[in-house]
Amino acid sequence: MTEQKSVTVLGLGLMGTALAEALLKGGHAVTVWNRSPGKAEPLAAKGARRAATAAEAIAASPVVIVCLSVYANADDVLAGDVLAGRTIVQLTNGTPQQARALAGRVTGEGGRYVDGGIMAVPQMIGGPDALVLYSGDETAFEESRALLDAFGTPHFLGGDPGLAPLFDLALLDVMYGMLAGYFHAVALVRSEKVPAAEFTPMVTAWLTAMMGSFPAYAHALDEEEFGTDVSSVATSQVAFPGLLDTSRDQGVDPALLAPLRDLLDRAVAEGHGDDGLARLVTLLERPAS
Amino acid sequence: MTEQKSVTVLGLGLMGTALAEALLKGGHAVTVWNRSPGKAEPLAAKGARRAATAAEAIAASPVVIVCLSVYANADDVLAGDVLAGRTIVQLTNGTPQQARALAGRVTGEGGRYVDGGIMAVPQMIGGPDALVLYSGDETAFEESRALLDAFGTPHFLGGDPGLAPLFDLALLDVMYGMLAGYFHAVALVRSEKVPAAEFTPMVTAWLTAMMGSFPAYAHALDEEEFGTDVSSVATSQVAFPGLLDTSRDQGVDPALLAPLRDLLDRAVAEGHGDDGLARLVTLLERPAS
Repeated sequence: MTEQKSVTVLGLGLMGTALAEALLKGGHAVTVWNRSPGKAEPLAAKGARRAATAAEAIAASPVVIVCLSVYANADDVLAGDVLAGRTIVQLTNGTPQQARALAGRVTGEGGRYVDGGIMAVPQMIGGPDALVLYSGDETAFEESRALLDAFGTPHFLGGDPGLAPLFDLALLDVMYGMLAGYFHAVALVRSEKVPAAEFTPMVTAWLTAMMGSFPAYAHALDEEEFGTDVSSVATSQVAFPGLLDTSRDQGVDPALLAPLRDLLDRAVAEGHGDDGLARLVTLLERPAS
Repeated sequence: MTEQKSVTVLGLGLMGTALAEALLKGGHAVTVWNRSPGKAEPLAAKGARRAATAAEAIAASPVVIVCLSVYANADDVLAGDVLAGRTIVQLTNGTPQQARALAGRVTGEGGRYVDGGIMAVPQMIGGPDALVLYSGDETAFEESRALLDAFGTPHFLGGDPGLAPLFDLALLDVMYGMLAGYFHAVALVRSEKVPAAEFTPMVTAWLTAMMGSFPAYAHALDEEEFGTDVSSVATSQVAFPGLLDTSRDQGVDPALLAPLRDLLDRAVAEGHGDDGLARLVTLLERPAS
């Protein structure tokens, strides 16, 4: 079924190695390069071709997957006049600005640029649960699909190469927020000797129900209509100090939730007490001086 | 189908009124009382009997639902020698300690005590999505089910009356954590003019997938086995400053997520870098001095 393609992987950390392995499993002709060459050996044993330099590796394939430890290294690694006619798929974690700058350089040298954000750990690569976000040159993305499908489920966001790193960062942020809430809540029930495993199924059901409010928050923001008849900023602002006090009384550090109290206080002080909670987003967009 | 019962509701704020209305809709004989008597009038028009004093209201029914604005008011409202033989269902927001203290007093006077946590806004009362957590006297809970079913879906947690307020608080905390992450993330995508509605379905899918890790975190905590081969404290600790910097670069206040950076730093400093993220819970349980 799968057409064999030539592809290069630059950077063989845990993630780069997982990407190269997935391409080898997909039956593709894989050339690999890593700054410290020892990391290429296990892949060579599985059939990958080792290149001596980054430029040689890039020259070996029309599609080049980049997965370095630090985004800035891409400037060195992608140097020289080897980019013309090639598709660069940059999967190193970076920022929207970095992605746009590199895209400008690659296209300036006659290459095509796709940026990607891998929403998975290396162990998930190759499975259907590995979501990979892409943005940039849509034609280059589509023409590379036979390769990119080997990593997991691809999702193309749009032509701006900054979109994939932007969504990647935003999804990491919301994950960390949820984890912070979960860890705090588990500490609270454990303060009364309730096993975490007893509490956790209820959390999952509860958060799933609460996510049902997200579309209403999104609508409020997109339409700038912050009125609510369900749950106001003021209601949360009044309740919040008690939540933090109870944590302290139970011996649980409320530090992870404390900044939300400050934000609620600020929202009420600025006259937004009757608004819905989506109003808080606009305060984050206008940091306190 | 439903057996008619006599029931009293003390406290007629938005939530108490919603509870009384649900009981009236269920065909029960409802006596109501509120400190400021005007709030009882709309309910009286719908068939509720108004009591002149709290004691009179309590004496009118074998089951008394308490929903006051402040938990401490329950001491006044439930004063006197009217509790013997009655079931007190306390749905005012409180702490585990408050619930246990009141349970002790009620049972000391010959009453039965059930504490409850309403995981819903007033508009949801009476619908299947209104989860109400209960704990305390299980026999009294079961005998009151015909009434309590009118509020939504009841869930009995155990004999300790402190469990319902504990779970209530913990679920609120995890909800606020998730909301903090969502609000931060939405601000980030909006910094690049992406509509919140475009980003939100991806958040829901992503968080649903990430909740799949909760049972592993719970297992790590319950078994005190913090090793990981997936995602370590050190990995997050290295990545976190970049997440916060990018927020700032995009003009988004990273305040809601900043305390997690401090906790990750502390975990690494204490030698837990190779552990999984569940280790962070144990640091919350042992606040920094």
